[in-house]
Amino acid sequence: MATPTEIVDIALGDRSYQILIGSGLLDRAGSYEDLGTSAGHALVVTNAVVGPLYGQRLHSVLRTRFGTIRIVEIPDGEAHKNGVTLNRIFDEMLASGCDRKTTLFALGGGVVGDLTGFAAACYMRGVRYVQVPTTLLAQVDSSVGGKTAINHPLGKNMIGAFHQPRRVIADLDTLDTLPQRELVAGLAEVIKYGPIADSAFFEWTEANIGLLLERDKSALAYAVTRSCRIKASVVIADERESGQRAILNFGHTFGHAIEAGLGYGSWLHGEAVGCGMVLAAELSARLGLIDDAYAARVKRLVERAGLPVQAPPELSTERFVSLMRLDKKSDGGSLRFVLLEEGGKAGLRPVPLGIVSEVVEAHRQRS
Amino acid sequence: MATPTEIVDIALGDRSYQILIGSGLLDRAGSYEDLGTSAGHALVVTNAVVGPLYGQRLHSVLRTRFGTIRIVEIPDGEAHKNGVTLNRIFDEMLASGCDRKTTLFALGGGVVGDLTGFAAACYMRGVRYVQVPTTLLAQVDSSVGGKTAINHPLGKNMIGAFHQPRRVIADLDTLDTLPQRELVAGLAEVIKYGPIADSAFFEWTEANIGLLLERDKSALAYAVTRSCRIKASVVIADERESGQRAILNFGHTFGHAIEAGLGYGSWLHGEAVGCGMVLAAELSARLGLIDDAYAARVKRLVERAGLPVQAPPELSTERFVSLMRLDKKSDGGSLRFVLLEEGGKAGLRPVPLGIVSEVVEAHRQRS
Repeated sequence: MATPTEIVDIALGDRSYQILIGSGLLDRAGSYEDLGTSAGHALVVTNAVVGPLYGQRLHSVLRTRFGTIRIVEIPDGEAHKNGVTLNRIFDEMLASGCDRKTTLFALGGGVVGDLTGFAAACYMRGVRYVQVPTTLLAQVDSSVGGKTAINHPLGKNMIGAFHQPRRVIADLDTLDTLPQRELVAGLAEVIKYGPIADSAFFEWTEANIGLLLERDKSALAYAVTRSCRIKASVVIADERESGQRAILNFGHTFGHAIEAGLGYGSWLHGEAVGCGMVLAAELSARLGLIDDAYAARVKRLVERAGLPVQAPPELSTERFVSLMRLDKKSDGGSLRFVLLEEGGKAGLRPVPLGIVSEVVEAHRQRS
Repeated sequence: MATPTEIVDIALGDRSYQILIGSGLLDRAGSYEDLGTSAGHALVVTNAVVGPLYGQRLHSVLRTRFGTIRIVEIPDGEAHKNGVTLNRIFDEMLASGCDRKTTLFALGGGVVGDLTGFAAACYMRGVRYVQVPTTLLAQVDSSVGGKTAINHPLGKNMIGAFHQPRRVIADLDTLDTLPQRELVAGLAEVIKYGPIADSAFFEWTEANIGLLLERDKSALAYAVTRSCRIKASVVIADERESGQRAILNFGHTFGHAIEAGLGYGSWLHGEAVGCGMVLAAELSARLGLIDDAYAARVKRLVERAGLPVQAPPELSTERFVSLMRLDKKSDGGSLRFVLLEEGGKAGLRPVPLGIVSEVVEAHRQRS
């Protein structure tokens, strides 16, 4: 079923851009209007899974707008979101003579988007890039808002930049080829927006989780658009995360610890965030900010989506907590969390480590 | 002789800062006012030459302002301005638990400043840093204006960011320990400012080059302050080098090719720029923009400073030109140079490659 194209505006002054959401956008010349010049280089960064599916199609449509187009394939997976892969992109750009007028295209999921965006932020101190997200997670979250980064062995997203894309082209048809496990992982970020910012959307997600899991195109279009609108309003208010933008990290401090502790790529990012939201909701309830019933609703929705609701048995509670203290949301030694302050509202609060440990311990699978 | 402290303001909205220039600033608590908090981390990045001279003194004065202070020593020299050294800084920061409230201090010359600034730009997507330049080159040029970068085997400063420091503390007394070769290299950037922006300063430099070479403190104070004021006005007008800021690269396209062609560190940056200015002035004269006498004045001043005025014999003209085409000032394939448009005024212009080759060939030492 064809869906009309939705446009979400990210109003950030001279860094403003649009998110296009709809069917058939990848191959439509209009999606790329005003992006290129005949003298410009385009470099498409993609991975070994997405490249064979969509690389040539993107190459074809870019051919009418750019002087030269090259495709770089990087290895698939979070384990490769590191300096080694970043340098491969730089090597390719320099070897092919990319100058300051080069535009990078990130064709893939969150890993491709984060790496490509960071490469664009640093190459010759900044070139343009366009996000062409092909996973649900990237379409609803990581491709929007200009956060770019690579991982470090001691922590996720530790090295990065704020660098806004020139456009986000979210073609819903590319979700057709997404493995179910990745679709489910993307739903974690969709589920996130309701509890932190939009009670009505939380209820909509509860009512439509079945359709989303069945990839109903209208349901997906609605979920992506609504998620992007919520994210846009948060990013516009606090582009560089000096305050309120941090609410988008709901569940992420727990989630990052799981990813780092198991080794990147063992659990998918969305799976770790799913579990992390359950723990963060429970923490909010223990601190009396929300009632137990609301925390139970979050847990039930995460579970219905097919996401884990318990921490992995391989991580001891002690190690879990120490990993979180390293996480970037730590602040001068204190440990702060994004907590639900009521249904549809979240904020950053410091939490005593003892309570954090209790919540982790209570949600740890026994091995 | 004590000189009064001069202050140069860099007015860039919420990224504004001050350059302090004078004697005894390194040890003066007032130089660091408003920079730290007792909960904050300070990390001093320095090199194996400057660290033993000034590291402990900086550590002592920072102790009153920061909760924890660590010193990281990196290897000396342009050859180490790369990703390997950058990662050493990141490793140290993560291992010691540096958070977003960390302030980096760059204690050293241009290499330390560029590396530290880029580390600050990327660590957790941006932390604060302070420049404490101890070379003439860093005091008059590289520590001011927020350009940070590392080199890539295929080109100098190819990977970097615009990230303004919170303060520049230029203690003239640190120049006492500077080897004469490095003092001379720094003079190249001092000499640069007159021809591109300030005829009176060009004449002052011609009249005072002898005093500068003898390290007369008053002459150095004047040269550093005037250079910083000129650089400040250019940076304020064009922070991210979308246009006019490029004039600060006078001589640099030639210079970068020399550095890259010989291997970073063979010629000092200032030496390469000195020679580069002679070639760029000659190019300006051949194109009829300035008269031969003005180009000869530039050459004579560079020569009197003790800087090279001929390109190294190891680089063939062909290789020299191809290295410049890779340089970041290349633009969609055409080769643009900063040229003198009259005495005290410069601009970016495209130049036919044939004329460029002629000028290189005419100024190449015979081996």
